[in-house]
Amino acid sequence: MSAAPRILTVGTGAVGAIYSWRLGQSSEITAVCRSNYQAVKDNGFDIESVKFGKDVFRPHDVVRNVSECVTSKPFDYVLVTLKALPEVYNVADIIAPAIKDKNTAIVLIQNGLGVEEPIVERFPDNPLISVVAYIGTSQHEPGKIKMLGSESLIVGNYSKAKSNSETQRARFIELLKKGGVDVRVVDDIEQYRWQKLFWNASFSPVCTITGMNTSEVLESKEAMSAVKSLMDEVISAANAEGYSFDKEQQMKEMISTTKATAKNYKPSMQLDRERGSPMEIAVILGTPLKRAKERGLSVPHLEMMYSICSATNQHIIHSMSKI
Amino acid sequence: MSAAPRILTVGTGAVGAIYSWRLGQSSEITAVCRSNYQAVKDNGFDIESVKFGKDVFRPHDVVRNVSECVTSKPFDYVLVTLKALPEVYNVADIIAPAIKDKNTAIVLIQNGLGVEEPIVERFPDNPLISVVAYIGTSQHEPGKIKMLGSESLIVGNYSKAKSNSETQRARFIELLKKGGVDVRVVDDIEQYRWQKLFWNASFSPVCTITGMNTSEVLESKEAMSAVKSLMDEVISAANAEGYSFDKEQQMKEMISTTKATAKNYKPSMQLDRERGSPMEIAVILGTPLKRAKERGLSVPHLEMMYSICSATNQHIIHSMSKI
Repeated sequence: MSAAPRILTVGTGAVGAIYSWRLGQSSEITAVCRSNYQAVKDNGFDIESVKFGKDVFRPHDVVRNVSECVTSKPFDYVLVTLKALPEVYNVADIIAPAIKDKNTAIVLIQNGLGVEEPIVERFPDNPLISVVAYIGTSQHEPGKIKMLGSESLIVGNYSKAKSNSETQRARFIELLKKGGVDVRVVDDIEQYRWQKLFWNASFSPVCTITGMNTSEVLESKEAMSAVKSLMDEVISAANAEGYSFDKEQQMKEMISTTKATAKNYKPSMQLDRERGSPMEIAVILGTPLKRAKERGLSVPHLEMMYSICSATNQHIIHSMSKI
Repeated sequence: MSAAPRILTVGTGAVGAIYSWRLGQSSEITAVCRSNYQAVKDNGFDIESVKFGKDVFRPHDVVRNVSECVTSKPFDYVLVTLKALPEVYNVADIIAPAIKDKNTAIVLIQNGLGVEEPIVERFPDNPLISVVAYIGTSQHEPGKIKMLGSESLIVGNYSKAKSNSETQRARFIELLKKGGVDVRVVDDIEQYRWQKLFWNASFSPVCTITGMNTSEVLESKEAMSAVKSLMDEVISAANAEGYSFDKEQQMKEMISTTKATAKNYKPSMQLDRERGSPMEIAVILGTPLKRAKERGLSVPHLEMMYSICSATNQHIIHSMSKI
């Protein structure tokens, strides 16, 4: 194919904007925007990044929803950068209008565990590219994006996929690299989803529930006791699936990395709660709990944290629907 | 003794005001007031109660702290109606200036488990009267008290006391009854402290953490799963101390009573959090956890809830000290 690849980005918040911008160096981007639609349609994304510089990025097309942009010509990639909120919406339903051709690859840049499952179930014949992102970026007003420090994407095989995605994955990695993105290719993406959970299923809910930031959690004996129990159980759950994470080493590393790099940091789950936005509880706490239970593992601390975070989330979602 | 008994009330919020008022029908009340000092000094307590009627209650004396009211004549009773916050202050230190005579009885109308321990340790020779209150009352502005529905006090023997308190207890019960208070006398007060915890260590923290009121918790599968795990473990902890609560019956009763009587109710722990005030975590979650662990019981759900509530409380207390 000599024409520029056509990419549809679904959920163009901060993460979606950054990677659309980088992919946009070599591809034609259509961006689905909701709350920031008018701002982006009029002025594009105004982006400031230490790593990539300052720029205004104007997607090839900006639309309000997926069905608005469907033409006879299929997209090469549908890039999903929506928050992973199975409590609120089904990603498969949202992207369905754009998945008309079995060559359209679906790329998930989402947090949590199990985000691929509903996609594989609904679109078993489409190539699936599952990505874990390490990036600090935020949209402080509609269309205005700031990105801190560096970023990296981990791209790997999703072993439960039902179709081969090697060709599309290799090409997508090239597109990312052309945009200067730091890409790490791994054999098994779930291993890295689990590993990200060691932090995200422990520090994130403890910050969220207590109101403490990472530095305050690190200083609090009680908060750290909760963090460690959760991390311990999530690592056990991963190992019950066949991984062999060294528990002590993982915990030591997670804590020392947090001390070194996440000063006074508030995880996105906590920011969501503070804003009254739905939190990614199902994929961060729900899936590891479900997987642990399927293996007959006892994970009572995780169970308690899941129950109260899930109820908190219901309360947030219910309050939103009242507005 | 023919003179009216002299009672010092320490912590004259809503509960302290109501019982001082009722005891004041036959006794001479000195009230230690802090935030409401000026209002009460000037105008007394303005009280509205369905059960007891509407009245202005002017204590015999209103003081700012315990040492201000100490004369050569000892009090017959020091009535402690402070919130139970060992995280913040030591009740024994606060009342010490008024405990100059071994005939002065110390009355605790406080929530939670283990509130007697620091008192017995510090004043082993003084009679101790431990009371569990069931009452719904609040101070909506300084000195203005509203009391809903009925109330009752459970008064009983504290088996770990080091001095005999029978005479003083009998007399105190008479004084309460003269004020129309509904008093229930029981053999062993700790049994009733435990039983109150079955609710207070389950519904209270779940409401507090999730932001849901009791009716919303009752409707939420996840929130109720947390409530039930906590209640289950707290009942086990009580039974490990020699009680024989029927777990299923207790849980059924607690839930059906909540359904019937606590509609859209927010527990005081939750109201404290919403106001940014310290919560009674140590005596409601901390003591049962400590007792369970001393007995070698595994109570992981309680442990997790204690850790995060305790850290939340630290965060509140730390934020207060910054103001």
